[in-house]
Parts: sequence; C-alpha cells; structure tokens
Amino acid sequence: MVCPALQAGALSPILDRTGKTFPTDTLTPKAEDAMAPTELIRTTYTIRTDEPTRAANLIAREMSLGVKKTSYETAQTESFAAKPTILKTGKSKVVVEIMVPSQRIASAYGLVLSIAGEISCLNILKSIELTDFHPPDTLLARLPGPQFGAEGIARKRKNPKRPLFITVLKPSQGLTPSEYAHIAYESLVGGMDVVKSDELLQEPSEDYIKRLKATVEAARRAEEETGEPKWVMMHTVDRPSAMVERYLAGGKAGAGIAMLSPAASGFPMLEELARHRVVPIMAHMATSDWLWQPHGMSVRSWARFMRILGSDIILYPALAGTLKAKKKFMNDVLEICREPMSSMKTSLIAVGGGMHAGTLGIHADMFGPDFAYLCGGGVCGHPDGARAGGQSIRQSWDAWSQKIPLEKYRKGHKALDRALTAFATYV
Amino acid sequence: MVCPALQAGALSPILDRTGKTFPTDTLTPKAEDAMAPTELIRTTYTIRTDEPTRAANLIAREMSLGVKKTSYETAQTESFAAKPTILKTGKSKVVVEIMVPSQRIASAYGLVLSIAGEISCLNILKSIELTDFHPPDTLLARLPGPQFGAEGIARKRKNPKRPLFITVLKPSQGLTPSEYAHIAYESLVGGMDVVKSDELLQEPSEDYIKRLKATVEAARRAEEETGEPKWVMMHTVDRPSAMVERYLAGGKAGAGIAMLSPAASGFPMLEELARHRVVPIMAHMATSDWLWQPHGMSVRSWARFMRILGSDIILYPALAGTLKAKKKFMNDVLEICREPMSSMKTSLIAVGGGMHAGTLGIHADMFGPDFAYLCGGGVCGHPDGARAGGQSIRQSWDAWSQKIPLEKYRKGHKALDRALTAFATYV
Repeated sequence: MVCPALQAGALSPILDRTGKTFPTDTLTPKAEDAMAPTELIRTTYTIRTDEPTRAANLIAREMSLGVKKTSYETAQTESFAAKPTILKTGKSKVVVEIMVPSQRIASAYGLVLSIAGEISCLNILKSIELTDFHPPDTLLARLPGPQFGAEGIARKRKNPKRPLFITVLKPSQGLTPSEYAHIAYESLVGGMDVVKSDELLQEPSEDYIKRLKATVEAARRAEEETGEPKWVMMHTVDRPSAMVERYLAGGKAGAGIAMLSPAASGFPMLEELARHRVVPIMAHMATSDWLWQPHGMSVRSWARFMRILGSDIILYPALAGTLKAKKKFMNDVLEICREPMSSMKTSLIAVGGGMHAGTLGIHADMFGPDFAYLCGGGVCGHPDGARAGGQSIRQSWDAWSQKIPLEKYRKGHKALDRALTAFATYV
Repeated sequence: MVCPALQAGALSPILDRTGKTFPTDTLTPKAEDAMAPTELIRTTYTIRTDEPTRAANLIAREMSLGVKKTSYETAQTESFAAKPTILKTGKSKVVVEIMVPSQRIASAYGLVLSIAGEISCLNILKSIELTDFHPPDTLLARLPGPQFGAEGIARKRKNPKRPLFITVLKPSQGLTPSEYAHIAYESLVGGMDVVKSDELLQEPSEDYIKRLKATVEAARRAEEETGEPKWVMMHTVDRPSAMVERYLAGGKAGAGIAMLSPAASGFPMLEELARHRVVPIMAHMATSDWLWQPHGMSVRSWARFMRILGSDIILYPALAGTLKAKKKFMNDVLEICREPMSSMKTSLIAVGGGMHAGTLGIHADMFGPDFAYLCGGGVCGHPDGARAGGQSIRQSWDAWSQKIPLEKYRKGHKALDRALTAFATYV
C-alpha cells in the first residue's frame, strides 16, 4: 500500500504527488518503532455486520493509519498498519482478530484509544465487542500492573486461610466523622477486616482527611482488641490532580488500601494511582455494566484492563445479590486475576452487591478462601447493629469452613441466626 | 425512614440498637449540606424492567443512601436520599425521574458516580439509559463549563462567516516531525484553519514537543501567506498527570487548541484540562458509541456532560461518512451546545468521520456557518495532495454560500472537481 514514489527512501528528501519537496528528518527511526513480532497486540472482536471482510478491514484501518490512501505513506507509517484476519463467521456474528502495532503505546489512555476507540462508532457495524486482547510482554512492561498483587495482600494479612471481609459503610452519605468511625469500629470488632466508604460518598478535602483519621484511629483500636490486622479503604472523589493529592494524603493518614471505579473515573486514573504505589487498589465496578455489552467490551477484557493497569483487587457483582452477575463472567474474572501474565503480579477477585451472611457460601464454593467479600447493608443493616453484622459474617464463614449447613449452625450463633432471618427478604 | 430512636437529636449522643453510645460530632451541619430545592439534579432514566415501582425505588436507593435500613440513619444522612417519580409507563419502557441531592458533588467523577454509577449493574433492570439531567445552578457553578465557548472561539477567529475547517492529519502514525509539519502546512495554505493529529497518534514526550513546534512553525508560515489565523490542535496521550504537563507545555509551544476523547480518557480528565484554561478544548467521540445505547447514556446526556465539564467544541459523527450518526441525535447535540445553561458559555458543534468536499453541504444546511468540520482522508488523501485537499473544502464552501450546486461549481475549480471524483467512492 506504500506509494511507490515514497517507498524508496523514507529518510531522504522525496517528492509528494503535488511535485513539492516532502521534507524528512535526518534522524534514523528509533529501535522501538521498528515493527517487531514482539510489538503486536493480538486483539479479538465479535462483530455484527452485513459485510464482514470490508468491516474487518475498516476496523483495522481505523485503529492504525486511519486512511485509505494519501500521498504521504512511508515505510515508517506502514509499520503502524493493523492487520485483520477473520477467525470465525457465524450466522449473525463474526469473530475478527486484529494484530495491532503497539510500539508507541505506553499509557492506559493510549491503549484504550488504540483497541477500543473510534471503532465503536463505525457505521458498517451493527455492534462491536472487544472480546479479548493479549498485549505483548514489551507493552506489559510499560504498564503498571498490580503493585502489591494478591500475594502482597495475603502477606500483609499474615496469610489467614479465609476471605478478606470488607464492610461497605452505610448509609452512604451524611455521617459525621465520629459517626462514621463508630460504625467502622463496630463492624471491625465484630470480625470484618476492612471498612470502606460507599462509592457515592463525596466530601470536601478537609472532611475527607478528618473522617479518614477518625476511622484509622477506630481501626487501630479494633486491631488491638482483636489481634487481627484492620484496614481502612480510602476512595478519593475529586478532579484527577486533586485525587492524586488525596490518595497520597490518605496513605499518609493510615488508609491501608484504596478504591477506584475506573469505568466512571476513566481507566487512565487507575494507571495514575497505581504508579504512585502507595497502597493496594481495588477496582470497583460502578458504571461497568454499560461497557459489558455486545456493543462494548467483554467482562474478560474489562478484567484484563483492570489487572494490567494496576488493580490488586478486582470487584465483580456477586451472585444472588442486587447486581447483575453471571457465573460464566465471574469465572472469566477469576481466570484473568490468576493467569500468568508476563511478570505481572496476580489480582484478588472480590464480589459484592446486596451480600450478607447467607450469601457467602456460594462464593466460597467457587473461589475457596482466596477472595474478598463485600457487605454493606448485610453488616451495617444487621438488626443488632454493625458489630453483630460483622459477627454474622465470621460465623457464616466458620460454618462453611467446617462444612456445617447454615441452618444447623445458626442455632447457638445469635448474630448469624438474626442475619439469616433479617436478610431472607433483604434485596 | 429515619430510625425513630435517632430522629430526635442527630447532634447529641444517642444510642444505636445495640445499646452502645453512638457518638456524634459537636459540629453543626454545614450550610451547603442542608437540603435545599436548589441542590437537586433532576435526572430522567428510561428503563426496561418487569417491576417498575420497585426498580425506581432501588435506583434511587443505589444513588443515595445505598441501603434499605440500618440503625444509623440521621436527619443529616436523610438529606442525601434521592426521590423517584414514575413519569411514563409504556409497553416495554418506563421513564423515571429521580431528584438526586447534589450538595456535595463538586467534580466530574463525583457527578458520574452519582447519576450514572452502580445503577448500570442493577439486577432488577434489563436496561437503564441516562436520558437527560438538569443540574442546579449551584452545581453548575462548581463545574468548569466551556472556558472560551463558541463565542470565544469566534472572536479568536476574527468572526468569519464560515465553519472552522480542521484537517485530521493522516496517515495517523509514524510521520517524522518534518513530514507531519509539511502536510500540515500544505493543508493550511490550501485553506484549512486548524490541523490536528488523529486520536491514535502516540509519541514520547520529547517527540510530541518536537512535532508540535515544527507544526506551529508551519502554521505561522501559512498564517503569513494567507493572512488568516491558523491553529495547531494538540492531543496529549499519556497518564493523567503527564497529560496535564504536556497540555501546559503544548500551550506554551503555541498549540492554540486542544483535543481530548473523554469517553476513553474518563470524563474527569476533561474537567482537569478545562480547569487549567490554557486553550479551547474539543471533545472527541472515540469510544462514545459504546455509551450511546439503550443501556447507557443518551447522546443528549453525553453532550450535556461534555459542555458542563468544559468542551468548547463537541464533536459528533458526521452524516454520510464512515461513522454512525443520526440527525435526531445531531440535533440534540446542537441544542445542548446552544441552550441557555446558567451562566455557562455555549459550545460549538463539530462533525467528522469520512468527510470530504462533497459532504460539507448537508451539514451547512443543518447548522449554517457556525460549526467545525473535520476532514482527514478528505484533505490529506486528495489525489493532488493536502494543499489541493484544503482548496477543495474551501471551494465547496464557496459553492454552498453562493447557493451554486457543486456539480455546476466543480467546472473551473480543479481541486473540488478532483475531490468529487476521488471521494465519490471514498468510504
């Protein structure tokens, strides 16, 4: 596709079709720009279209040179051309594989633009799903990945053989720092490991620090009383530069873990926070279901973005709760969390959304002890308060790990018994 | 819904249901937290569900207190409760209006989480579309809005009575700074006003500055030769903090305008750049079509986000091009760009995607002279080069403004004539 007139010498002055001199720099192309098999992202898309071949070519064009033909192609520009292959043609869907040159990609924003950008708008497509992608090791090395990883989190926890129990503190907004810290303390003493704010909680910077400090102090007391590590999870809601400041200040104030909703904040914000490497980060799923569609990206692709951009924990909606979840997709997230990926650390899977003592078992059956379990109303909304809520979760876990059915174990375990009654019709 | 035991005195020590003291701060609630009719976002959603009333209540709950009942509600937390109303029940769709308390929202991230967050994942919904939203003036005052606006851009252009013609420089990647600047110069001398890079172009920081400087120098030469203002549009692809640095450095290097793809970068990044107020910003639509779905946000809502978060120019796919566009949605964007919105400046609508000299007229028919028109291949891919490409666009405009049909005007106007032939089968 290179214009013959230009193909000969990309580095010496050449003429474009208008007959004018087409100046070039005397610089030699950089080594990293040379097309190498190690610099291709193998990307698969599932599309619906009436013209599969033309569509595949257009997708590849839109994600590389962006043009059919000009007078200005050089050997160097051609090294950025993406190559499509049709893998599978079904009745209504077609699977296309595109090899996307990645030699210049070095950020989350760049990656999203390159494999999930303007292609969403292509007229020739009824829909396009980013089904999966495999970045080369060279690209993975330029992205942060989990900074602590499931292994780092386990070490910080002194490797207990049970899930990380996280209270989502409710009601979500309007509590004073002391009120907030009080509920946090209760749930932690009850048996929870981490207390986090709901993703909706917003507050001016000074209130954020005040609440964080009060909660960290409460966690320290709970730690002393129980002998278990207790963490406070921060969530900074602000404009990007101020979010970084809050994240750093929160880490300094003792928040041992952080949360972010990358689909709402933009995936690049995850990369930004991860690169500061202050504390482990949990990627929350707010807004993500709008992406998880046949015209969007698969849960698998989303989870892959989350891991390679720096999520130590990846939260997906829980089964039997208030949020949409599918076992198949949950298994995809689990696989992405744990699969070998160059030298990147693994991520820990988390589930949440309308959870309580009665819904723990089905997840433990799937994951074993290595996952994070989020309970908001199921802890704070316990009829006897957040301490009993925390206790009910631990009792539910004790029952599961001893293989005793909940219906049997609830006798003699009041917090569990009261939770199972209260939350039987919770949602 | 307030726990009666707590309702009496939210500011004095009270007992929660466990009988323990529930500590409170002695601070009085802040004035901005008091629920006032001026602090409600009127938000409408179109949902598909089998249980409309329950669904409406759940959406309102998920976007405010996030819980059914705990021991810890106070008058203060209750001020954050969102209130749903069912506006319209159709055969398969229901329109719900929710009044969302906004007293603590002060950032793009917070706004997205509050009206477009976890609700996307609710199990009870087959789909939920954010159809429109009306932030109160108090909230608009806390968001940047266009910093220059359509009016500021017109002034900078010395108010010519024609569209802003923007070259999207192609091929997208791999050109050296001189090659890039050469094509830019040609298109600008030909008659284009602005040259911008394709959203896929990525490069290390030093190359970015080198290319920008070479292009600004080319634009200055074109300015001298034509006597018209010529701009270079920068697009910073990097991690967020580095994007801000590049944006500031680019402004200093003479880039007179900037681009961002907020659906790929995250809407908060638009707020971040706008708050720096360096140059006007155009919001690009890459990745946006994945949001513009019945389970997502309407084009209207997207455009509203773009304007209130700081887009001076809002780009929507053009008609008759390579990208999906609907006249109805284009009119929505136009309306949002121009409608009165507190004291916020207006935005300029832009269209692009597979445009050339032959596709200008249908847009001018809709918008008149006040819009921005993006041509990539339609300028750079002109058979006689980018200069002829720029000329063809200006000739097409001359024909439209003199009400002469293109088929007549092409005689005697070579650049136009050649474009109409070359791009007749362009896409």
